[in-house]
Amino acid sequence: MHTAPMASPHPFDQALALRHSDLASGHFIGSTHPAYWNMVGPFGGMTAALALQAVLRHPELLGEPVALTVNFAAAVTEGEFEIVAQPARTNRSTQHWTMEVRQRDAEGRMQVNTTATAVTAVRRQTWGENDCPMPEVPAPQAVERFSIGPKGVAWLEQYEMRPVSGALPRVWDGSGHHSETRIWVRDAAPRTLDFASLAAMSDVFYPRVWLRRATVVPAGTVSITTYFHATGAQLEQVGTGHLLGRATGQQFANGYFDQSAQLWSEGGTLLATSNQIVYYKE
Amino acid sequence: MHTAPMASPHPFDQALALRHSDLASGHFIGSTHPAYWNMVGPFGGMTAALALQAVLRHPELLGEPVALTVNFAAAVTEGEFEIVAQPARTNRSTQHWTMEVRQRDAEGRMQVNTTATAVTAVRRQTWGENDCPMPEVPAPQAVERFSIGPKGVAWLEQYEMRPVSGALPRVWDGSGHHSETRIWVRDAAPRTLDFASLAAMSDVFYPRVWLRRATVVPAGTVSITTYFHATGAQLEQVGTGHLLGRATGQQFANGYFDQSAQLWSEGGTLLATSNQIVYYKE
Repeated sequence: MHTAPMASPHPFDQALALRHSDLASGHFIGSTHPAYWNMVGPFGGMTAALALQAVLRHPELLGEPVALTVNFAAAVTEGEFEIVAQPARTNRSTQHWTMEVRQRDAEGRMQVNTTATAVTAVRRQTWGENDCPMPEVPAPQAVERFSIGPKGVAWLEQYEMRPVSGALPRVWDGSGHHSETRIWVRDAAPRTLDFASLAAMSDVFYPRVWLRRATVVPAGTVSITTYFHATGAQLEQVGTGHLLGRATGQQFANGYFDQSAQLWSEGGTLLATSNQIVYYKE
Repeated sequence: MHTAPMASPHPFDQALALRHSDLASGHFIGSTHPAYWNMVGPFGGMTAALALQAVLRHPELLGEPVALTVNFAAAVTEGEFEIVAQPARTNRSTQHWTMEVRQRDAEGRMQVNTTATAVTAVRRQTWGENDCPMPEVPAPQAVERFSIGPKGVAWLEQYEMRPVSGALPRVWDGSGHHSETRIWVRDAAPRTLDFASLAAMSDVFYPRVWLRRATVVPAGTVSITTYFHATGAQLEQVGTGHLLGRATGQQFANGYFDQSAQLWSEGGTLLATSNQIVYYKE
């Protein structure tokens, strides 16, 4: 664990850095970061975090994130991108956002590679209840850290992952019989949890179809929706602690499966629930 | 059950009717329909169906719906509305859409009341598996039909609903202890299932917070995401049969809860999975 004082910002904050564009309020410029590179593009969770970050940085922001949907429309290529976040409607205590990530193609035309929507809200204390309790699992310290990433998958190095069950199969022999993973996760270099990192961590699970079939097939998230159940103050309290993530497939059919996921604080607070639909081949 | 030949279109098709606007391709005009009116606006499932219908009617449509997210940004008022559906990105076998529903306010300004995104795709036969089997429940014929809607809630009359468990509480005494409903549902007047009606039926569940608390509090869906796991041909095969819907809350906190839902054909095929985040008071 990295505990020395850091001269440069945390890699996640480097990747999350956006500068205002000259175009208009809500237009930002950013760059893909090598630390969060996946196999053929950036880690999708990072793109989701960036779409949300543009909202969080917008001068007209009302409240805190409640819902985020990010659609991965085309591969994000290495280098600079533009993010536009616009409030579509602002009410008394809720605000609805539309976002787009764009890049120039080889011919210099600006193309949309990601569309997204978000809901932010001023939350008030109400009655509450958790109907999806955290599974009973061993403490993070009792679970071995996952250390072998496929070569070239940089973003995996940015997370401390301790799979409790449903780890990446060691043998790809078609023997899979379920699609549930339970895993402790947090930033490898300590960083206090916030909405952007929670959005990213909602996408840390490897494709359910690999587990279900114990077979590697091409797969990629097409759309992810995350609901935030905690306030920024609660996330700050979680601090640099581990989150328990649980992900399971529901239906695999004709090239697409869905994944239902939950993320709890170590203390058992359900911080986020997240769903995604994933393309797969064969 | 209505079995006589119908002189006029099915109420759902009447409500779903869109005419092309003169503005541009992908601009449509529609009107709220009294048969799908809820308490202070149209049934949200109908608005979701309409957002999807604008995509399905678009001349550039590629494939069939895979994902739909609809954000209820402001109340839809009675009367005419405009829907704009635009393909944000078209790939070889997938297409990403953004949609908006707009109405003129009292001052005549066009205002967005609904934002939405969709993914459509040409689906190919692949390996498949259902990891979320249909619960064992009595056949629809063995379950009593729910017939008493709160006065003035027209849309409830449009569905034949047979709650297996987790029905609307009869006594509002704060005694609730779970948030799961299982219900047989189909159009009250027979209509062959399609993507638009499946999108609508994904939103037929009453607010989980009412069941969980056995208390009526103000509540309303803020955002819904539905994943479609079947092809149009499969939906047509389901025809006018019952669907089993299951909905449960996961987390209730600070004014918002999420609902996780599944819809199976009577034969046990998981046709759609749907999640929503719902505002509630107190």
